[in-house]
Amino acid sequence: MVKFTPSFNRLVGEFAKLPGIGRKTAVRLTLFMLRQTSQDALALGEAVRELKERTRFCSRCFYFTEEDPCPLCTDVGRDDQLICVVEEPQDVIAIERSRSFRGRYHVLHGSLSPLDGIGPDDLKIDALLERLQQNNVKEVLLATNFDVEGEATALYLAKVIQPFGVKVTRLAHGIPTGSDLEYVDEATVNHAVEGRREL
Amino acid sequence: MVKFTPSFNRLVGEFAKLPGIGRKTAVRLTLFMLRQTSQDALALGEAVRELKERTRFCSRCFYFTEEDPCPLCTDVGRDDQLICVVEEPQDVIAIERSRSFRGRYHVLHGSLSPLDGIGPDDLKIDALLERLQQNNVKEVLLATNFDVEGEATALYLAKVIQPFGVKVTRLAHGIPTGSDLEYVDEATVNHAVEGRREL
Repeated sequence: MVKFTPSFNRLVGEFAKLPGIGRKTAVRLTLFMLRQTSQDALALGEAVRELKERTRFCSRCFYFTEEDPCPLCTDVGRDDQLICVVEEPQDVIAIERSRSFRGRYHVLHGSLSPLDGIGPDDLKIDALLERLQQNNVKEVLLATNFDVEGEATALYLAKVIQPFGVKVTRLAHGIPTGSDLEYVDEATVNHAVEGRREL
Repeated sequence: MVKFTPSFNRLVGEFAKLPGIGRKTAVRLTLFMLRQTSQDALALGEAVRELKERTRFCSRCFYFTEEDPCPLCTDVGRDDQLICVVEEPQDVIAIERSRSFRGRYHVLHGSLSPLDGIGPDDLKIDALLERLQQNNVKEVLLATNFDVEGEATALYLAKVIQPFGVKVTRLAHGIPTGSDLEYVDEATVNHAVEGRREL
């Protein structure tokens, strides 16, 4: 019934591929693009092209960057002896935002998930072990997610890092800031009790 | 603190210009684009380019189209004597979706809004009056929005159409389908009582 043109439908389809954008929002975005001047509308595609052309993953830590090695790897104010291992580039952003970490990073680009056929060789684990060998690393902080895959990945990494004689730590498990204890799930309370600290 | 590359920031900025997309979502979409293959990512910009190149507004009804006149204007199954006037192209979609209308459309591309400096000459009103003159139109259904600007536009149109001796109608005002009367605002109930119909 509703008459859309082929090019309209095509752009709706492209927008709908984006995470969190359904068909209704995609139609709204496409109508917005129709109302924009050509120059403003084309700027989006131009920005995507530029991003894809200029951005690579850092050959050392695998965070995304326009220069290789990335600014995080070349920053002289950071501690070379401390490496934080995360699953995805956005996890680096989350930790940087907390302003709590001044070491280097290592992005695995995924987590172990045998059900999805993702094994150790699909992650940047060999490159991590190479970094441990070459540099005088004292501590590896495992900051993979706290879901099943992330926990399995952390356990696996702890095992393969052990032979290097490097201290392996994990992000603390516990009650999030601002929580009402009454509403925190029991697994989290369990971890918080087990991980209690002396004041 | 958080290290984004210039091209990353640029795409975040472009995404954030879209309606309903804030900075956080824009960052998420940009990270998604980074993970896509170049081909998949570039398809979005390509689709925008195609949309802007191929889509014009129909010279008769001002709905968007790839052919001129548009399929809605050339559809022989539609009643030439009935024209539905709407503010924006998406309003055509809303009415088509209801499957309740088989006449022609006329898109004004806005509504009268003196505060924003939008007067009759900024809307496609002259073209509407020309259509009334040239074709044997019997009824104009005013389907502008039910906000202040839309109501003002409807009143203005009713006045300028009157000399043509064409019947002018307005969408019914009343209780929406599925409403609980208790929670309907008083202005709507007021209109529904005034517009009551015999069963």
